[in-house]
Amino acid sequence: MYVTEQSRLEATPISGLEHATLAGQAEGLRQLSLWRQKIAPGAATPPHRHDCEEVVLCSAGQGELHIAGEVHRFGADAVLVIPPAETHQIFNVGPHPMEILGVFSVSPVRVFLPDGEELLLPWRS
Amino acid sequence: MYVTEQSRLEATPISGLEHATLAGQAEGLRQLSLWRQKIAPGAATPPHRHDCEEVVLCSAGQGELHIAGEVHRFGADAVLVIPPAETHQIFNVGPHPMEILGVFSVSPVRVFLPDGEELLLPWRS
Repeated sequence: MYVTEQSRLEATPISGLEHATLAGQAEGLRQLSLWRQKIAPGAATPPHRHDCEEVVLCSAGQGELHIAGEVHRFGADAVLVIPPAETHQIFNVGPHPMEILGVFSVSPVRVFLPDGEELLLPWRS
Repeated sequence: MYVTEQSRLEATPISGLEHATLAGQAEGLRQLSLWRQKIAPGAATPPHRHDCEEVVLCSAGQGELHIAGEVHRFGADAVLVIPPAETHQIFNVGPHPMEILGVFSVSPVRVFLPDGEELLLPWRS
């Protein structure tokens, strides 16, 4: 299956977060996962980390990346580079929905909370 | 350097192909590379293959993916999944520029022509 269509965003149990898995294990991938997400104004991801590299492309909105004790403001056209094992959190601090593409260097993606507990994802990875 | 801006498309020696490296080795990545490209109407990539996984997201235009002796038509919102070592070629078959994001499971990305010769890239990877 070489060509598919981008799946649509769907609501998730995480407040203010819509998600679509664009590509991952179901497409035969082992070293790449691509997710599209929309974060509502005032909402945020949980603080979390992965055991793989991650790049986030922002295409709309204004946000903050909290990582390594620092706060980085960003807007549309930003590229966020998140190394493995670094706990991070993304906030929508603007008045409009934030649209992001998350790219990971593994499939499936594993998510860990700051205390080390694995967060079981409510979507396919 | 956790946050950068997406670099701008620039002309390349490949006719009809504009390119921007959004993230790769320079950003400390070893297992991810992200490229944005614009392909002019009537233009195409060379036939080539990689030694890593690749996913292409199309955001504008109408194209064909030639791979494994098959031709797959696609449009905006398509997801192309290209396994390692499979020779492929992307054509813009529509009247407008095609815009794509290419994601690779390694950095730097290596490109090989069908005869096995490595194509040295005219951009940073």
